[in-house]
Amino acid sequence: MGIVVQKFGGSSLDGPKKIKNVARRVIECSKAGNQVVTVVSALGDTTDKLIELGTQVAECQSRREMDMLLSTGEQVSIALLAMAIKDMGYEVISLTGAQAGILTDKTHTKAKIIEINPERLSKELDEGKIVITAGFQGITNDNEITTLGRGGSDITAVAISAALRADVCEIFTDVEGVYTTDPRMIPEARKLAVVTYDEMLELASLGAGVLQPRSVEFAKIHNVILHVRSSFNHRDGTIVREDRYMDNNCQMEKDVVVTGVAYDLNTARIGLFDVPDRPGVAHGIFTALSRENINVDMIVQGAMRNGRNDISFTAASEDIEKVLEIMKPLTETIGISKITCDRDVSKVSIVGAGMITNPGVAAAMFEALAEEEINIHMISTSEIKVSCIINKGETERAVASIHKKFNLDKTDQYFLGRIK
Amino acid sequence: MGIVVQKFGGSSLDGPKKIKNVARRVIECSKAGNQVVTVVSALGDTTDKLIELGTQVAECQSRREMDMLLSTGEQVSIALLAMAIKDMGYEVISLTGAQAGILTDKTHTKAKIIEINPERLSKELDEGKIVITAGFQGITNDNEITTLGRGGSDITAVAISAALRADVCEIFTDVEGVYTTDPRMIPEARKLAVVTYDEMLELASLGAGVLQPRSVEFAKIHNVILHVRSSFNHRDGTIVREDRYMDNNCQMEKDVVVTGVAYDLNTARIGLFDVPDRPGVAHGIFTALSRENINVDMIVQGAMRNGRNDISFTAASEDIEKVLEIMKPLTETIGISKITCDRDVSKVSIVGAGMITNPGVAAAMFEALAEEEINIHMISTSEIKVSCIINKGETERAVASIHKKFNLDKTDQYFLGRIK
Repeated sequence: MGIVVQKFGGSSLDGPKKIKNVARRVIECSKAGNQVVTVVSALGDTTDKLIELGTQVAECQSRREMDMLLSTGEQVSIALLAMAIKDMGYEVISLTGAQAGILTDKTHTKAKIIEINPERLSKELDEGKIVITAGFQGITNDNEITTLGRGGSDITAVAISAALRADVCEIFTDVEGVYTTDPRMIPEARKLAVVTYDEMLELASLGAGVLQPRSVEFAKIHNVILHVRSSFNHRDGTIVREDRYMDNNCQMEKDVVVTGVAYDLNTARIGLFDVPDRPGVAHGIFTALSRENINVDMIVQGAMRNGRNDISFTAASEDIEKVLEIMKPLTETIGISKITCDRDVSKVSIVGAGMITNPGVAAAMFEALAEEEINIHMISTSEIKVSCIINKGETERAVASIHKKFNLDKTDQYFLGRIK
Repeated sequence: MGIVVQKFGGSSLDGPKKIKNVARRVIECSKAGNQVVTVVSALGDTTDKLIELGTQVAECQSRREMDMLLSTGEQVSIALLAMAIKDMGYEVISLTGAQAGILTDKTHTKAKIIEINPERLSKELDEGKIVITAGFQGITNDNEITTLGRGGSDITAVAISAALRADVCEIFTDVEGVYTTDPRMIPEARKLAVVTYDEMLELASLGAGVLQPRSVEFAKIHNVILHVRSSFNHRDGTIVREDRYMDNNCQMEKDVVVTGVAYDLNTARIGLFDVPDRPGVAHGIFTALSRENINVDMIVQGAMRNGRNDISFTAASEDIEKVLEIMKPLTETIGISKITCDRDVSKVSIVGAGMITNPGVAAAMFEALAEEEINIHMISTSEIKVSCIINKGETERAVASIHKKFNLDKTDQYFLGRIK
């Protein structure tokens, strides 16, 4: 018995058959004695189709009207899912973002949730109804429809979980949970029973993108326990919460954890040579990039030689043309001797909440790469992550070697990462 | 300078090219110095497609969820039209039924408008914006989305016209206006410059269905002047208002008007023979039919013979199976000797506001039919209409003959219908 918030994405709702499957899944949860709020996205590729319609009628898009357009996608989903559940004999009601009390700011197409007024949600739950709520959308205090941007439905689910103090927020997806590494690449990859919010954030931003980072941050802030699981079977997925060791006796292992190995093929490296060592130079470079919405990932500045530095950074492959264009005029004004660009690279990372207290972890990763004679182009470390840029063609060998080095293919995750 | 409310149906908005055409049309009206509110339906056959989706996920339909589903159709339209207009450089805003202040009762899928709160509409108009409003939908006072049923967008346009005291409500459609008879059947048919609400009501219910009767009634009650016109050209269409002679000098002609000839091929005749002449018999028969939502049209009861009557009535062709099913058990309990059913009939009618004061009108109609040797099966008359049931195969000849008899192919409508 408890309050369960569920979220189903568009691929789980693509067509009448899948909608009925989701309906059965929702009913199961209700029959198990829970109060259920289910958050849904637009069916299949509805959102893309609507955006295309929009571009066909207008070259310059009005963000306000785009929200008016896109919010219909989720409204179709909630109506159909509620119809299916009602047809199976259960009490149910669908609610738009506005009806569910999801109040946002006025930033159309990228609105942020300000607060949730759970009055209507609670009323319907107390009347014994299953509640189906539109994800991705909200309303401003002057009655304007907004959407939340990428990953919006996850954020809706997390925010409702926080407002209702739900026992768990189940994120249904087409994978079974979060893995020690990509199971499509490394067959030995194992599903993790539990990861922390911080680990999940790193895993998500590294391309193991089951959940949008914003929704994980939101869950962390409001302490919402997530359960990432498959919509195709009933196996337990991966729990995401603050502390991996909440309820067991292996506190002693806390400091030796590597949770997973992530990789990102969609990256490229830019090298800037002989950058003058003057205050404000880095600021000038990276401000120019951020102004054009270029998301720079790793930044490494080596030791100074003759009053000049070499700076390397990575960005998403699709942004590289734009990066070079922006850098060109800067090269002269700042006085950089050479710019290089390497697209044939990938990023391999290990993630683990206990990493910072165990300096041997990074060394073990480098060892795993050395054993495979893989050259490291760049290194970057954070409290819970070590990332290396390597040649793209060596990615699979690198991930396999690191995965094995940390025994991720064998040990129970609660005890994993002990390095000799 | 004035307030103009426009309504465009789904066929005018079917695809990006047509949406841009409508956008230009709306802008023209605005550039002419008017404050413009444009009401739109769902694009093309969107509503049918949504209904089909609904039936695919559930056998029994929840009306409340059907409204949630269908109301998305108009929301897509308003967003796209607003985008197109904005892209052409004009200030515009789209409003859902809820945002436009369209308050309805709680009868899902067939809601009635209770009142319109024009505050938001007026505010946007006063700020110089073109307002695009979703037809067919409204909201209850407890924030539930409703739809208005068939012809709902017309009703929305008329209701907004009433609330804003608009100068005219333009109904754009794929015909050029209201004709003296069906121009596809009778090439001599002429477009009418003006018809009265009552004539329009009769013409609409007789199958010349440019406007849903409910919206004409609504316009009559609130004295909203309608202008039925083509969305494909700029010619004047047909004005619908209370009095045909508002501003000219032909009052003397008022009593001799036949406005048009309508026909309905979708009808069938039921004959009940030897119905006992007891109080409550007719009541029993027609209550049984109305309980099953059978819309009975003409009812004729002839002279009594031997304490028994023959009763004939007509109903829509598609309802006839159900009518016979309902009548079967009644035949025995009431004591009817025989039931006949004739599907091979049609209804031909003349409509005109001045008819009641001119008894020669019906006679002239019968004369036109007699000249073509067309047999009349049933006759029914009202204040502004005479209808005859004839054999279906003779419909075209009948309409042509009547149309000619009343000089509808020749005379200006203000002077038409003078019978020798």
